[in-house]
Amino acid sequence: MQILRANIIFTPESTRFQVVESGYIVVAGGKVEGVYQTLPEEYQHSPVTDLGNSLLIPAMNDMHVHASQIRNQGIAMDQELLPWLQHYTFPEEQKYVDTSYAERMYRHFVHTLWRHGTMRVVAFASVHLHSTLLLMRLLDEAGMAAYVGKVNMDSRCPDDLQETPGEALAAHEELMRQYGHDASRVRPIVTPRFIPSCTPQLLHACGEMARRYNLPVQSHLSENLSEIALVRQLEPESLCYADAYRRYGLLGQTPTIMAHCVWSNDEELELLRQCGVMVAHCPTSNFNVASGLAPVRRMLQKGINVALGSDVSAGHDFSLFRMMVYAIQVSKMHYQRDKTCRPLTLAEAFWMATKSAGQFFGNVGSFEPGYDFDALVIDDSELLIDNSYTPLQRLERFVYIGDDRHIAARYCCGQRLTEPQR
Amino acid sequence: MQILRANIIFTPESTRFQVVESGYIVVAGGKVEGVYQTLPEEYQHSPVTDLGNSLLIPAMNDMHVHASQIRNQGIAMDQELLPWLQHYTFPEEQKYVDTSYAERMYRHFVHTLWRHGTMRVVAFASVHLHSTLLLMRLLDEAGMAAYVGKVNMDSRCPDDLQETPGEALAAHEELMRQYGHDASRVRPIVTPRFIPSCTPQLLHACGEMARRYNLPVQSHLSENLSEIALVRQLEPESLCYADAYRRYGLLGQTPTIMAHCVWSNDEELELLRQCGVMVAHCPTSNFNVASGLAPVRRMLQKGINVALGSDVSAGHDFSLFRMMVYAIQVSKMHYQRDKTCRPLTLAEAFWMATKSAGQFFGNVGSFEPGYDFDALVIDDSELLIDNSYTPLQRLERFVYIGDDRHIAARYCCGQRLTEPQR
Repeated sequence: MQILRANIIFTPESTRFQVVESGYIVVAGGKVEGVYQTLPEEYQHSPVTDLGNSLLIPAMNDMHVHASQIRNQGIAMDQELLPWLQHYTFPEEQKYVDTSYAERMYRHFVHTLWRHGTMRVVAFASVHLHSTLLLMRLLDEAGMAAYVGKVNMDSRCPDDLQETPGEALAAHEELMRQYGHDASRVRPIVTPRFIPSCTPQLLHACGEMARRYNLPVQSHLSENLSEIALVRQLEPESLCYADAYRRYGLLGQTPTIMAHCVWSNDEELELLRQCGVMVAHCPTSNFNVASGLAPVRRMLQKGINVALGSDVSAGHDFSLFRMMVYAIQVSKMHYQRDKTCRPLTLAEAFWMATKSAGQFFGNVGSFEPGYDFDALVIDDSELLIDNSYTPLQRLERFVYIGDDRHIAARYCCGQRLTEPQR
Repeated sequence: MQILRANIIFTPESTRFQVVESGYIVVAGGKVEGVYQTLPEEYQHSPVTDLGNSLLIPAMNDMHVHASQIRNQGIAMDQELLPWLQHYTFPEEQKYVDTSYAERMYRHFVHTLWRHGTMRVVAFASVHLHSTLLLMRLLDEAGMAAYVGKVNMDSRCPDDLQETPGEALAAHEELMRQYGHDASRVRPIVTPRFIPSCTPQLLHACGEMARRYNLPVQSHLSENLSEIALVRQLEPESLCYADAYRRYGLLGQTPTIMAHCVWSNDEELELLRQCGVMVAHCPTSNFNVASGLAPVRRMLQKGINVALGSDVSAGHDFSLFRMMVYAIQVSKMHYQRDKTCRPLTLAEAFWMATKSAGQFFGNVGSFEPGYDFDALVIDDSELLIDNSYTPLQRLERFVYIGDDRHIAARYCCGQRLTEPQR
């Protein structure tokens, strides 16, 4: 059991922060027992770690990121989508056939997550099984929790990034053998890149893998208008883009996360809601690739679970705090045009990156009793140029202008994670 | 004379970077003599400071920022514009009647500029003369160049932030006495807050001060739609919002910089072009206050000079590098809707923050001969996770994902600026 004392802030629901100034959190077996303003009698004789004036908040969850694109983070941002895929994205992924290259890059990836306080991730690796297994091992060794997708694709990409349905199935058998056990914090996720990258045969195989191994699914959905037009051609019998995934058993038949949904109309959003699909909103990516402004308020109004994703390297920034800022800003552009569509609040954006995202992993992302103790200790003393900020103003300042320098400690499942080797 | 060796990158024009890998820059009397791939014979026996693998780029210019709002940086971002002004902005500026409070905050302001590599600034102070003089002294002591505005206002704000036209004139006489001499790098700028904050009498006085002392002018223009509607009511005889400034002698009669121009229509943009007005594009601010997406490509197509501003505290970030990213992203949202309106390139955004902005100060923001040597040494070694990045990719990565940790040295007018005291 451990007891920490700090200014504790979390979002038990999307609309409000719970703030316990100089409060106590009791953690046992990696899970939160309770948060208290005054330490209950039963704990009075237990040692307390006093974190002083620090903030203690739930750790970040990045629900959409391409681990194999870390080298391309922050470059080629002036490229159009297609040249970008052809000249940057695919050539980079081709390098991951070499596990020594993969190891070097994936070590940077894991270190970067750690640095930014991201303790859980839902990631695309590449098509290569051995590099994917390597990434899973590195995340596991770092103490993080993750769903890692060996990418499935066999169309509209270089030959050596393609696989047959049989290869996809065999790879997932191996992934399940190594990471399919219940105790594993790092687990596989079925990852058809997106409809245009997969033949119907491979999409069927993906649906079959999800069903057979009871594996979750991740993919891209309705990111941009020409992609949607292409899917309409490829899948003329589907009612909408999301429906195409559904018909292959890839939309909510098992827990599903879809990135983007920038252009999902009401019909598609309704389908996502019915199927319990989580949307990974990736605002920096949507800007950088000129996709558009995702209608997050509309998703929330419908009752869809929305989380945040960095989407590196279409997104350039690994910080989920920066994603919160961008998500709020995108929502304000909707508000500017339609005053009934009120902007996301900081609480809502914070909740998206913590408790909303966390439900994909179980009881994660909050400090309510029974939740995994995933937490960040924020030492924002350098930002306190005045002594009159409230704890929530301090959190807001950290979210908007802080960075990894202000993250003093990181916990996942109750374990303090030390800096991973780069 | 000093000679530096580094990977030299600058934008002699908006459309292209000039890159001199492992090149030399010769600086004499604070000004660039030349940039060379091979050091000319005449300099062969002069000592060279070898900056190794670093990048050497022009320093940043922040063309719109409210120095007196630094305490509010990154807070109250969920507020609507009017409550934000009433409960955060004005109460904060009221504190600046106290020069000891002002000194504490302005020291943080100057330090923050330094940290982010911003060597020149066009700033709003507050209505208070003595605090404004203090800010000017601190910027001067830090070795920076600046136009600092003692704010002029007498309407729609708390009584103690109002001044009479006579007080405004007397204050500017004092500002000219102390900072009006030619050698001063820190100079006054006439600063009517915006049309709605000033009576016609005060606006006339501002125009008169600009004319009498040949002072430049800064203000806000066409930031949001309700503001524009209000100005139409207040100034029914003006053809547009900008025309109202023009009629008071505050639009290009002396060098003028207008922040925002989010909603300027073609007529207003044409007037800005005719009057040679520089636009300070403040993309983070425009997001945070839900103003909208400024039509920067349209401005550039018309031949208007566009620079970048952080607009703290409506903007939350002091980094001009972050402003470049946001400016590109805003332009991509225009592009998404209108494919004839192509996105800003990195070169254009970089040029906006350097050479375009710099012309407000003279020959500033480039490494062409005769330009003031304002420069940053970028040590991005921590970002080089692979050895195959080109110098331009390194610059792009630094712009997108780097921060003040990667700025190894800062120069203004040839002088290396040491860290100012906080």
